Amino acid sequence: MKTASFDDRLPVFDRVESGVRSYSRSFPKLFNKAVGATIYDEKGNSYTDFLAGCSSLNYGHNDPDLKKALIEYISEDGIAQGLDMFTDAKEQFLSSFETYILKPRGLDYRLQFTGPTGANAVEAALKLARKVTGRTNVISFTNGFHGVTLGALAATGNAKHRAGAGTPMAGVTRAAFDGYYGPEINTADLLNQQLSDPSSGIDAPAAIIVETVQGEGGLNAASPEWLRQIEGIAQAHGALFIVDDIQAGCGRTGGFFSFEEMGLSPDIVTLAKSISGMGLPMALTLIKPEHDIWTPAEHNGTFRGNNHAFVTARAALEKFWADDGFAKEVADKAELLADRLGRIAQTHDLRLRGRGMMLGVDAGSGERAAEICAACFDNGLIIETSGSHDEVVKVLAPLTISDVQFRAGLGILETTFAEAFATRNSAAA
Amino acid sequence: MKTASFDDRLPVFDRVESGVRSYSRSFPKLFNKAVGATIYDEKGNSYTDFLAGCSSLNYGHNDPDLKKALIEYISEDGIAQGLDMFTDAKEQFLSSFETYILKPRGLDYRLQFTGPTGANAVEAALKLARKVTGRTNVISFTNGFHGVTLGALAATGNAKHRAGAGTPMAGVTRAAFDGYYGPEINTADLLNQQLSDPSSGIDAPAAIIVETVQGEGGLNAASPEWLRQIEGIAQAHGALFIVDDIQAGCGRTGGFFSFEEMGLSPDIVTLAKSISGMGLPMALTLIKPEHDIWTPAEHNGTFRGNNHAFVTARAALEKFWADDGFAKEVADKAELLADRLGRIAQTHDLRLRGRGMMLGVDAGSGERAAEICAACFDNGLIIETSGSHDEVVKVLAPLTISDVQFRAGLGILETTFAEAFATRNSAAA
Amino acid sequence: MKTASFDDRLPVFDRVESGVRSYSRSFPKLFNKAVGATIYDEKGNSYTDFLAGCSSLNYGHNDPDLKKALIEYISEDGIAQGLDMFTDAKEQFLSSFETYILKPRGLDYRLQFTGPTGANAVEAALKLARKVTGRTNVISFTNGFHGVTLGALAATGNAKHRAGAGTPMAGVTRAAFDGYYGPEINTADLLNQQLSDPSSGIDAPAAIIVETVQGEGGLNAASPEWLRQIEGIAQAHGALFIVDDIQAGCGRTGGFFSFEEMGLSPDIVTLAKSISGMGLPMALTLIKPEHDIWTPAEHNGTFRGNNHAFVTARAALEKFWADDGFAKEVADKAELLADRLGRIAQTHDLRLRGRGMMLGVDAGSGERAAEICAACFDNGLIIETSGSHDEVVKVLAPLTISDVQFRAGLGILETTFAEAFATRNSAAA
Amino acid sequence: MKTASFDDRLPVFDRVESGVRSYSRSFPKLFNKAVGATIYDEKGNSYTDFLAGCSSLNYGHNDPDLKKALIEYISEDGIAQGLDMFTDAKEQFLSSFETYILKPRGLDYRLQFTGPTGANAVEAALKLARKVTGRTNVISFTNGFHGVTLGALAATGNAKHRAGAGTPMAGVTRAAFDGYYGPEINTADLLNQQLSDPSSGIDAPAAIIVETVQGEGGLNAASPEWLRQIEGIAQAHGALFIVDDIQAGCGRTGGFFSFEEMGLSPDIVTLAKSISGMGLPMALTLIKPEHDIWTPAEHNGTFRGNNHAFVTARAALEKFWADDGFAKEVADKAELLADRLGRIAQTHDLRLRGRGMMLGVDAGSGERAAEICAACFDNGLIIETSGSHDEVVKVLAPLTISDVQFRAGLGILETTFAEAFATRNSAAA
Repeated sequence: MKTASFDDRLPVFDRVESGVRSYSRSFPKLFNKAVGATIYDEKGNSYTDFLAGCSSLNYGHNDPDLKKALIEYISEDGIAQGLDMFTDAKEQFLSSFETYILKPRGLDYRLQFTGPTGANAVEAALKLARKVTGRTNVISFTNGFHGVTLGALAATGNAKHRAGAGTPMAGVTRAAFDGYYGPEINTADLLNQQLSDPSSGIDAPAAIIVETVQGEGGLNAASPEWLRQIEGIAQAHGALFIVDDIQAGCGRTGGFFSFEEMGLSPDIVTLAKSISGMGLPMALTLIKPEHDIWTPAEHNGTFRGNNHAFVTARAALEKFWADDGFAKEVADKAELLADRLGRIAQTHDLRLRGRGMMLGVDAGSGERAAEICAACFDNGLIIETSGSHDEVVKVLAPLTISDVQFRAGLGILETTFAEAFATRNSAAA
Repeated sequence: MKTASFDDRLPVFDRVESGVRSYSRSFPKLFNKAVGATIYDEKGNSYTDFLAGCSSLNYGHNDPDLKKALIEYISEDGIAQGLDMFTDAKEQFLSSFETYILKPRGLDYRLQFTGPTGANAVEAALKLARKVTGRTNVISFTNGFHGVTLGALAATGNAKHRAGAGTPMAGVTRAAFDGYYGPEINTADLLNQQLSDPSSGIDAPAAIIVETVQGEGGLNAASPEWLRQIEGIAQAHGALFIVDDIQAGCGRTGGFFSFEEMGLSPDIVTLAKSISGMGLPMALTLIKPEHDIWTPAEHNGTFRGNNHAFVTARAALEKFWADDGFAKEVADKAELLADRLGRIAQTHDLRLRGRGMMLGVDAGSGERAAEICAACFDNGLIIETSGSHDEVVKVLAPLTISDVQFRAGLGILETTFAEAFATRNSAAA
Repeated sequence: MKTASFDDRLPVFDRVESGVRSYSRSFPKLFNKAVGATIYDEKGNSYTDFLAGCSSLNYGHNDPDLKKALIEYISEDGIAQGLDMFTDAKEQFLSSFETYILKPRGLDYRLQFTGPTGANAVEAALKLARKVTGRTNVISFTNGFHGVTLGALAATGNAKHRAGAGTPMAGVTRAAFDGYYGPEINTADLLNQQLSDPSSGIDAPAAIIVETVQGEGGLNAASPEWLRQIEGIAQAHGALFIVDDIQAGCGRTGGFFSFEEMGLSPDIVTLAKSISGMGLPMALTLIKPEHDIWTPAEHNGTFRGNNHAFVTARAALEKFWADDGFAKEVADKAELLADRLGRIAQTHDLRLRGRGMMLGVDAGSGERAAEICAACFDNGLIIETSGSHDEVVKVLAPLTISDVQFRAGLGILETTFAEAFATRNSAAA
Repeated sequence: MKTASFDDRLPVFDRVESGVRSYSRSFPKLFNKAVGATIYDEKGNSYTDFLAGCSSLNYGHNDPDLKKALIEYISEDGIAQGLDMFTDAKEQFLSSFETYILKPRGLDYRLQFTGPTGANAVEAALKLARKVTGRTNVISFTNGFHGVTLGALAATGNAKHRAGAGTPMAGVTRAAFDGYYGPEINTADLLNQQLSDPSSGIDAPAAIIVETVQGEGGLNAASPEWLRQIEGIAQAHGALFIVDDIQAGCGRTGGFFSFEEMGLSPDIVTLAKSISGMGLPMALTLIKPEHDIWTPAEHNGTFRGNNHAFVTARAALEKFWADDGFAKEVADKAELLADRLGRIAQTHDLRLRGRGMMLGVDAGSGERAAEICAACFDNGLIIETSGSHDEVVKVLAPLTISDVQFRAGLGILETTFAEAFATRNSAAA
């Protein structure tokens, strides 16, 4: 097909695509190319990407080594779709995951290749926890996000997404996340009291599922102490402890897992987003061997054998996780990020949210946050919001972004905040 | 990583992969390459593929034109993961879908790019139907398969998959598929009676979801008359009519949709499996414009913007569906298939099942069917079973398979059936 | 309080009672007295009662022996409310139930005194069946009525009642009652096929619950053969077989249980309505000893010790069930009823419905049936409708009604039918 | 039937009654008579009743005026069972309820006569709230008890009762009752935060249902301030405010309703237990007129017309609630009770629980509480426990108990506590 101008090409989206699309409303350009932390539109304009595919592009767009590995694989007629058959690409991914991720961390997990979406990995985790324990109740947390298929959606907090179900959802009890009721109240104690009370009305749980940093719920970061307490509560009450590491994992918060060096040992971990390294659909449910009681194909899915993703995933593990160099780089960038966002927050008397390279500023309201993101986009920066009221301006830059580009992007952000608050300040003056 | 021998490499699967894997149990080889209808293992042995990624590889493995388009796209740093932003690749896919699929068939649908799994497309369809109608009940059919995430699983019939839920599922009422109770009973009449009776206990449905040919449930093919009656029942009772065309669509039964030339006009159609053309994860929910009432992002999913798949999907539409040449070829192959399987069925007094290039032979029992598939694999043919008791040997060859290879594969099948039944015959003699 | 005239007294109902009341709309008189089959309004008008408290007054109003026993009991300060403590009245009821009901029929049941409503007895039955089997699904039938509390309502077919739930209900799968699809189709075979098919989508049931005659659902009487087949299906599939005998039991269809002499042995039987004999609230769940696995108070309810009802219940058992005299009388009356209703049905080419003293005529439409009942009331006969569309005029006379009064009532009915159909006939002429 | 000795008569319970019975295990005597606050066993032993039918006998056993009214009614062939037809007895009850209860308190409610159990009144309340709001979620509280039919059980906290369901229950979200997390935490604030947060995962509620004093959950009494805040939260979030006054109402806590003089105006109130005055089964759902949107018979139940109960209920209203004399007497008795239990609590360093004539002492453990109750019974006092661990010894004496008998009973209790704690004290010394 020939290339028409954007004005000619835009209407097809309105004509043929469902109104459910969302990001294209904030960033109404036709994009056609992307490298590293930069996306280009068809007119050649470039944008710095502080969204990074919602953290599915932690290593940036089209990393040259991943790209090379994939092109080679395709060129040699490597298997694209392998269901759950043994393939070369899968074997190499498994081996590298064992070598670079599991062994060095002393972890013992079985990998379930679920349908290649995070929601599917969560569905598998919850199903398995119910099967293992013979219980149906699952504890999830305020502001948690775990996906929008019915089983995962039941565990998700967001009212708009929940309304999409069109039917009441069951099987999940909501507990308050760390700090939800303010610093005075230890919400883990509240949960423990309820689970310890045979008359509380909270049914004995199959699992407690938690994000260490709530990516969609407002970049709320749980403390290691609180997470350890939650894990202990799960154990004490016979429930599996599940960490949904889909957004916070794969280096986003520093280590490969977001819970490293916290002394945690989750029964199940879900991974997706950046696991393939190049943004290709892939999801994993990591299961402690003693819980891996699935019968063959009990949970299945046609695309669980997306071998292209296995190829790039392996390449990513080899490139970024064979030693601790990358983790250190990420730590440095996270420090820079904390400094710069901290300055913004301090200047405008706002709260910082999040952890590692998953940090944001609570702009005080969804309106102001949206306004700031829109102004950023006008200045060539793609950035989005998070939180109950979309009030947090969230930086999810590629972890591989160069310092120069990172500083430039943060500069745009700082200026935009300043301009946005100038009106208020002047009005208040 | 270095390449070890298979004996060295196999154990990683046992060590690190979940026991949920299934096809690798039937085909315990390490595969590393595939072209057209042929898969190769690492020792260079070739196998004819009558499984075709469970119909997700209708155009065969690594079709040269699709492969070329994809390599070019990646080489030029085309966007891999675009969330639901406007991208060049998506625009071209939408335009070609409009041009080659919708317009020629006089169809008007909005395309929702759901998370790239069939289950996710079904979840979106059911959620939307509930939202549109304000009702919660969904009618699905005996032996239906719609996926294993909780919302889709509720509509799925298979007990093993249902057991995986670990919790009771709600919101779905089961009706009998066409012919379920034998030729004497019109099951659509039964359903209509129940829905017309205010005291039947069947709540007014949001939707009736049906496969025209039940791919997993035993290759049961519904008649056009029955499908039209079901559509009429849906309309009469205020329910949306949903065709799950994930396995039967994309040419598998002849036309692009499995319900073409039947006079049907589904409110929602789900597509996945072969829509990307190359086996890459992609799924679509097609929605009549009047039902496209989603709010932005109400149903979302990180990988709904798998642009690699959009590229190959567009290439596939242009190559295979720009005119009716391919459909005619498929019709010819389907005729050959019907002849050859018909001969097998007649010889051994067995029943033929299915339609188009989705045809099988009911081997009488799951044990015999498994035995036949195993023997075929020993002879270089990959083929699988289907049905309540896995009793149907199911041919899902690539639609692009050459006549020579197709006949050879069918020859293996015929011989294997003959050998399998020889024992019985001799025993009976 | 002083007695005001009816015109003065009626408004309090509109002012203070909920609009949920129903029978008072059909019979808008103020009733103050009742003996046997006769009810009196405050003006002294008498009405023959063919409704009998919806079969909760099988022995008529204020039977002299029951009344005497109750007055004596109260006069002597017998315990009215005993929770589930051992009381004299309860002991005597249990002994007489054992002596007159269980022993002569060779039955071995444990009696659970549930909250004194039929719905509560059904709730207990379903809960226990789920507990015994560890399964959650329950099979109930089209047009079945089992009560309107949430657990029982899930098993009830009527759409109006179901709508009252205000929430979707789960845990029940609907099967077709005997004859539901006409005489050609054996609906038990359909159910058996579904339960035998691991891919039918019908989860293995905890119980099958059935009324032998559907009192609210249109007086559909199941055949003994069909019921035996259903019981066999329950056994074969590991489900408990529950007979809800709340409306059809206590002599209404001839024997004490509606299923006597059918060769059935239900695992659980529910009784309510006429069990107290005098219309006092009482309900029983009869449980085979091996299924009586309740922990103490696991299912409870304040009014499960309504000792007044135990007193009248015992008196009723002694008076009516110590020998087979009463059953024979009922059989004679049922014959008379069948003759007279048969004549009506034949004359107007209508269908007879029901069994024993639970018989009715399908008037062809709810409108006509309502019209006939209204005209009967004008002539001093209280009678109501039943069925999906309230199309069946249902005779539920006290079983103790005198022949003279019975014939007189039936005479009113016959005349009313004749008048109602006269218009139609003359119009058709 | 002749009267056998107790030794002869006891076995029938083991032989024929379900093991679900409970109170008879604590009080294994055969009772045959009761007057006021005294129950007699068949050997003529008398017991003071501090259980009072779990507060269903607030006016004592066989109050002479209620008994007289009932005997007269029965003697004159008053209607026993009237379904929901207009009867003299019902009219008089409605009028007296309007005159003595509603009007003096400035209340405007419609009375729904539900099936005569508290659970049924709760089921009706929840169904109606869902119907009125079009929402399904209901907020109930930790340690709440609302009955054991499936809809009510979902709102009940007790794990043993919940386990009886045999199936997961949905549609209820649990909030923490007043003081649940200790005096520092205002649990109403926690609930409000969750309901105000669109991402908390708590679906917008149809209703908030609360007991002002949790009768089964441990005599936890909510403060008026907390209750007003909860009512305000319900209003602010579009939910109905339901007070379940089944155990705390009918004078138990002083006024006719437990929430009088608190400035509350519940949308729905449930009553049962003592509403009939004599322990006869009766239940009411009081509905603000604007919410009375039931269609006729949408919620029904055969025994909703238990006219015997209407007769005694009217007599009780006239005798006890025509002026404020009774309420004052109850207040005096409550003061006495608080003094005496307070002394016990102080002596043994225990906590007092409850309010009005619904007061208890937390004995520290279920074992000790059971021991105390057993010892009381040996001394002629019937008393029971309450609470998550059955740790509260609960006084539910008839409100009409004479001072002499009340003091005597409390004396037994005091002595028993002293003896029970003597061991501990001596051991500690």
